[in-house]
Amino acid sequence: MGQTITEKIFSEHVGREVYAGEIVRSPIDMVIGNDITTPISIRAFEESGREKLANPEGFAIVLDHFIPAKDIASANQAKISRDFAMKHDLKYFFDEKDMGIEHALLPEKGLVLPGDVIIGADSHTCTHGGLGAFSTGMGSTDISFGMITGGNWFKVPESIKVVMTGKPSQYVSGKDIILEVIRQLGVDGALYQALEFTGDTVQYLSMDDRFSICNMAIEAGAKNGIFAYDETTEAFLKEVSENNGGLRAEPKIHYSDEDAKYTRIIEIDVDKLEPVIAYPFLPDNGHSVSQAVEDNIRVDQVFIGSCTNGRLSDFKVAAEILKDKKVARHVRLILTPGTQKILRDATKLGYIDTLVDAGGVVSNPTCGACLGGYMGILGDNEVCISTTNRNFVGRMGSRSSKIYLANSAVAAASAISGYITDPRSL
Amino acid sequence: MGQTITEKIFSEHVGREVYAGEIVRSPIDMVIGNDITTPISIRAFEESGREKLANPEGFAIVLDHFIPAKDIASANQAKISRDFAMKHDLKYFFDEKDMGIEHALLPEKGLVLPGDVIIGADSHTCTHGGLGAFSTGMGSTDISFGMITGGNWFKVPESIKVVMTGKPSQYVSGKDIILEVIRQLGVDGALYQALEFTGDTVQYLSMDDRFSICNMAIEAGAKNGIFAYDETTEAFLKEVSENNGGLRAEPKIHYSDEDAKYTRIIEIDVDKLEPVIAYPFLPDNGHSVSQAVEDNIRVDQVFIGSCTNGRLSDFKVAAEILKDKKVARHVRLILTPGTQKILRDATKLGYIDTLVDAGGVVSNPTCGACLGGYMGILGDNEVCISTTNRNFVGRMGSRSSKIYLANSAVAAASAISGYITDPRSL
Repeated sequence: MGQTITEKIFSEHVGREVYAGEIVRSPIDMVIGNDITTPISIRAFEESGREKLANPEGFAIVLDHFIPAKDIASANQAKISRDFAMKHDLKYFFDEKDMGIEHALLPEKGLVLPGDVIIGADSHTCTHGGLGAFSTGMGSTDISFGMITGGNWFKVPESIKVVMTGKPSQYVSGKDIILEVIRQLGVDGALYQALEFTGDTVQYLSMDDRFSICNMAIEAGAKNGIFAYDETTEAFLKEVSENNGGLRAEPKIHYSDEDAKYTRIIEIDVDKLEPVIAYPFLPDNGHSVSQAVEDNIRVDQVFIGSCTNGRLSDFKVAAEILKDKKVARHVRLILTPGTQKILRDATKLGYIDTLVDAGGVVSNPTCGACLGGYMGILGDNEVCISTTNRNFVGRMGSRSSKIYLANSAVAAASAISGYITDPRSL
Repeated sequence: MGQTITEKIFSEHVGREVYAGEIVRSPIDMVIGNDITTPISIRAFEESGREKLANPEGFAIVLDHFIPAKDIASANQAKISRDFAMKHDLKYFFDEKDMGIEHALLPEKGLVLPGDVIIGADSHTCTHGGLGAFSTGMGSTDISFGMITGGNWFKVPESIKVVMTGKPSQYVSGKDIILEVIRQLGVDGALYQALEFTGDTVQYLSMDDRFSICNMAIEAGAKNGIFAYDETTEAFLKEVSENNGGLRAEPKIHYSDEDAKYTRIIEIDVDKLEPVIAYPFLPDNGHSVSQAVEDNIRVDQVFIGSCTNGRLSDFKVAAEILKDKKVARHVRLILTPGTQKILRDATKLGYIDTLVDAGGVVSNPTCGACLGGYMGILGDNEVCISTTNRNFVGRMGSRSSKIYLANSAVAAASAISGYITDPRSL
């Protein structure tokens, strides 16, 4: 019987053909924790009485949410992970050194790879599916089970096939595709299923687009999002390998069979897609940018960053749009790169100078404002257009604030006018 | 009767010869507020029923303490200043756009000048004395009186003359001189007096050194710190003028008379001075770096930044010391530039790359960690060596944390070993 790529990844890991619905005990290639979630996992690990991690090189801690410490509690919280990393001489521990947002940093370091089974105590762990891995978020105690045993129990997910056709027009990106998918599916439309992204559009999607798309699979309730390995993946891994003196392991490449079983097929006409804005208060509340322009939506803050859209291509498009322009007086433009490498590349390419000249402020890499952490929190009744992944009530600050999710081109264009703006109209 | 430079500035402002001890009503050249203190001033201003600022071009608001907003309260607080700035179409309003720490930003913009009378609702407003201005911190209601009337009441301060002799040796900077001055005077040794910095050492002190020295005048209780205008000041202003298309006004140059009256003269043998470390919990608790090395002081965090020492020369010396070195595994190195210009200059000169390669993280300009705001807060029992100006109990976070104040060279050297280190020993 035909298999999906997700089924094949699990089959390879458990050593036999497995199919959607089966409960399997799979080894895990990479377990990921961050400064918020890891302390709970560490406590459970220590309560287990184990002295050593089952697979020390398959465990990464990335402090990214609240460091450099935003307050005393964050500093104390981070210390638990730091102490654990020192005690276990953890190879993959990232704090203020070479810091980055876990889902931007780990692919860049060659630590998550095609064919991997990856779990992380962060809901956006699904990002790594962009590489052709099975990657999903789990709770902290599941992470501790991964730390203790090197594996975990999974129900192999059913799959929804997303067939994307056509070439994205200017200022349409992966972000718009995933916002459209979520608009069609709803925030619970893919519960515990894999979202498999296919179709001729894939050839036009950069790795940044793919990460952005898979990042938000969870916003439709999906267990994971996944793209098959192709030339774009290959080129990305080649560069990552060069930058890091090799990859953590060899990529394991799988493709879905033609007769693989899907619970649903949805089609996205990408060539007709225009930029999508998710209105408050759910990511599935998508509207076209044309509609948003008609709705004359004034913004107080523009945020470009996060594990969804804080990558080099986001800084590139924002810099192109803001070149020799100024941010509206009433607006603050905050940009947060995903990693130090992204920040440095954006600096070398002149994007940072352009963005600061325009009136933006560029922070160090951090999850920061996205989850209402710091570095751009919204006050009462404030409105933000943001390239992040969630626009829930109070997500970025005050419960009376509002978030509109958009791609980086729309966000940058809106910074100039102070109203949600179609970058194609500039 | 001979006058001090401080007396001359007030004499020029009030139109007659005035001397220490006199209460005068002086016009003010620049009134400064920040995101924490301005809202209180705005409320008092509005309660006065005035429609307009007495001198709109003599009022600057710089949002620097908690923006990009660290939390909802900070965002709401900043909004009060933003709304006021928009309503009054304030010429000198700095927020996320071209952002910086007020005491680093205003000199760089040519908004504070020799001979000025300057007040700011921030205790480190004394920084601008480095330019030969009378500049002092006041409470928010005094600021509102400045907003309403364009002037304020002052008791002309008596002066202490600090005579500095000799050339600073390598890795001895303005920071060490002021820490030594404070060590000798004590934290209340200069209450309501001017600290006038003179002597042949002045020729060796950059503007960065002078700002750093005057910045901490308040840590000896001084009303203001002041350096007379010289070639270094002139060259600085020339550059500032070029960068900004002119200065806010013409510099007014004053020198103390030979027979000016001082309450006290203290002498600092700068050529014999070694780097000074102020131990917890007061800035006057100075020890030599040699003593600190002997005391074997382990640090968790190294912070280089603030209105005291977040300038280009700080990044330069830190980069020189950290070139091709690595920050100790247990240490986090956080660097916060004073302004966007400092950050950009440091980037162009390669300092930022060096510092990030070594394992440091560089934030956007902000007061941040210095006052326990965010971006590097200390957890319980943590120890920090910091280039900031205060090491009070809990200043940067937990009440059980400890801060050692030092210059940027000592801080950078300590980041490598993880213990307070003499940069001269590297």
